[in-house]
Amino acid sequence: MAPGVVTPTTSGPEHKQDTDLTASAVDAKLTTKNGHVQNGHVDPKPAAAAQLAELDASKLTYTLTPTPRPVPDEATANSGLETVCTDHMITATWSARTGWAAPELKPYGPLTLMPTASVLHYATECFEGLKAYRGHDGKLRLFRPDCNAARMLMSTVRISLPAFAPQELEKLLLALMAVDGARWLPRSRPGTFLYLRPTVIGTSPQLGVQAPHEAMLYIVCSFMPRMDSPVGGMKLHTSPEDMVRAWVGGFGYAKVGANYGPSLLATQEARKRGFNQILWLYGPEGYCTEAGASNYFVVWETKEGRRQLVTAPLDDRLILDGVTRRSILQLAKERLAGELEVVERRYTIDEVIEAEREGRLVESFAAGTAYFVCPVSLVHHRGKDLVIPTGENDCGAYTAKLKGFMYDIMYGNEQHEWGVVVNEKE
Amino acid sequence: MAPGVVTPTTSGPEHKQDTDLTASAVDAKLTTKNGHVQNGHVDPKPAAAAQLAELDASKLTYTLTPTPRPVPDEATANSGLETVCTDHMITATWSARTGWAAPELKPYGPLTLMPTASVLHYATECFEGLKAYRGHDGKLRLFRPDCNAARMLMSTVRISLPAFAPQELEKLLLALMAVDGARWLPRSRPGTFLYLRPTVIGTSPQLGVQAPHEAMLYIVCSFMPRMDSPVGGMKLHTSPEDMVRAWVGGFGYAKVGANYGPSLLATQEARKRGFNQILWLYGPEGYCTEAGASNYFVVWETKEGRRQLVTAPLDDRLILDGVTRRSILQLAKERLAGELEVVERRYTIDEVIEAEREGRLVESFAAGTAYFVCPVSLVHHRGKDLVIPTGENDCGAYTAKLKGFMYDIMYGNEQHEWGVVVNEKE
Repeated sequence: MAPGVVTPTTSGPEHKQDTDLTASAVDAKLTTKNGHVQNGHVDPKPAAAAQLAELDASKLTYTLTPTPRPVPDEATANSGLETVCTDHMITATWSARTGWAAPELKPYGPLTLMPTASVLHYATECFEGLKAYRGHDGKLRLFRPDCNAARMLMSTVRISLPAFAPQELEKLLLALMAVDGARWLPRSRPGTFLYLRPTVIGTSPQLGVQAPHEAMLYIVCSFMPRMDSPVGGMKLHTSPEDMVRAWVGGFGYAKVGANYGPSLLATQEARKRGFNQILWLYGPEGYCTEAGASNYFVVWETKEGRRQLVTAPLDDRLILDGVTRRSILQLAKERLAGELEVVERRYTIDEVIEAEREGRLVESFAAGTAYFVCPVSLVHHRGKDLVIPTGENDCGAYTAKLKGFMYDIMYGNEQHEWGVVVNEKE
Repeated sequence: MAPGVVTPTTSGPEHKQDTDLTASAVDAKLTTKNGHVQNGHVDPKPAAAAQLAELDASKLTYTLTPTPRPVPDEATANSGLETVCTDHMITATWSARTGWAAPELKPYGPLTLMPTASVLHYATECFEGLKAYRGHDGKLRLFRPDCNAARMLMSTVRISLPAFAPQELEKLLLALMAVDGARWLPRSRPGTFLYLRPTVIGTSPQLGVQAPHEAMLYIVCSFMPRMDSPVGGMKLHTSPEDMVRAWVGGFGYAKVGANYGPSLLATQEARKRGFNQILWLYGPEGYCTEAGASNYFVVWETKEGRRQLVTAPLDDRLILDGVTRRSILQLAKERLAGELEVVERRYTIDEVIEAEREGRLVESFAAGTAYFVCPVSLVHHRGKDLVIPTGENDCGAYTAKLKGFMYDIMYGNEQHEWGVVVNEKE
């Protein structure tokens, strides 16, 4: 662009470098004065900001249900069309005028929203997913809830919802499990889990296309089927050419509703054809990104004979920074250093196909909270099946090792800082 | 990819050409037997399909409010943070087992959703926006509601919500205005409008990432401020380099929530800096796509001296197929044929800048239901202001002509098939 083409603005230095509106807005929201987040108000004047309440788990009020429901067994709980939740949930409302109200723990039940609520029109919504694990030592644990809380803050800000101090969300997660854990995930069921779903939605009854001025954070806890051991391994179908999940400059890294709804159609079509999930490819090169809503991993040997655990990188912000993903990478580095080189880089479906053809493809798995660590046995790409070794019990040796490390931390077979024990109320 | 790399599947011809999962699923949903849509069930067996009810406006039930609210004047109605809606709304629920229930016209009020509702997590939501116009001849009109209904069907299917016959939605829109029009848009206010917002949301209380098996269609009618004549014209800020609105292979053409929430952050940041909207550019070339949530138009002279009305094309599915957009293109072709050549093609911000520099840039405007036809006076791009002529009254001559054609059809100064008269109940 030649100089002089456009007239320089006269309205100040803020117009000089301004090609980063989104990043700039995120920074503003996350700017801290005292080392913690300022109540989610976007551009608080100091005086006004002081009056806006922060999210504060210590203000949590308790209203317990007078009619606790019978706790179903796992099979029953997961057999219906409706997700079965525990007796209680936590909610906290926010408004741009007053900040965060005191959070409430109360009986699980429906939400009331105006038909004009922002979330119903503009997808001002984000969520997290993490599990609570009943250990073989009887204790109830969350797995790295600090990671989920930090990611939730990032997603919340990205989708124009109010910020909060992530450690307060972590405390609320523990508070809900402290109340519902003992009955809904009893000591008589070691090795089982429940699923926690913190959510933030824009509740402003306002059809104007703008950031919500009212919002609600809520946490529910539900049953979820085990999905980590499909018979014969997980079968993936590469993404259709008419469909991209996420793109550079988009929001694929954030756990916002907008990443999920648009992908349901292709996923449903793949399931009708007998596949479990879509392997989302990116760009004409066909970079492997995510397997459904999980991160995707391959174990292969390089042409030089080095054995590698490979997964897509985070730096282009196409994929979710999975808690399972980062834990597996760290465990592989710490515990399989002599066996596997850990590599985060862009890699293409053609590289995977070439490795298979040359006998260098060792294993493959998907990893995330829902699917845990799930062996992948087949990738269907452009009309052909790529068969991936899974070894004994439909689970490759490295996959099994990594899964075992994780399981032992989650269920208390190994005492580890990632397993955060819930202080249960009996 | 060399032959023999992957093993051909043995499970049938459906695996031969299957790179079009999304398009294929859309086709399946829209496949008709008798010339109309089959109740939104994805893959109905003939017997089951016969039992699933279609959306049927003739089954509409009426429950009128016993306490009609006072109708505010325009200024009051648009001054608060909450969108003011009319006395009634229409809802219709859908389930995968039974199809569409009879639609209900009932008092406007809150919706009840389970915290696990699909729409709150996975953005299974889409909407439309159209206005009802009180004509200078006293009649109440919708403008091309068939176009909105058809687009709503497309969006609904794209986001894995149930299909319906679009003419039924059109009838429901007319039915709501027939009841609320006379009081909320009285004959004493010719030249004013209300805003209709049909919406479909996924209501299944199910956290599994899958297409909703329950949904709700609803229509509300609200006040909306006039936005077509900002003082000094509309000022746009080109999109940040860290933010892409839509992408080829995405869903930019569908009116789904997922296109809106992620854009709010950059829009809010632009507004803080004094701009009305983002001019969304695409790709390294900087193609002009949309202005905020409106379509974007430029009038320029080519280097050869031909005067053109230029807007982005639909074929790459990046932008919304705007009803205002298509109407303006058609009117320009029909009524300004001697003055303006109508061109739908990709064009870059650099082309606009070059035209301005060479004195060939004539006018620019944004067009959509909310902003109607709104003159653009400035585009801020990479630190510099591009000033666009707007002529008298902050509105260029072509912009004013096209706006006038539209206005006259909308408000009954010209009898035209695009203006669909509501048969009001007095």
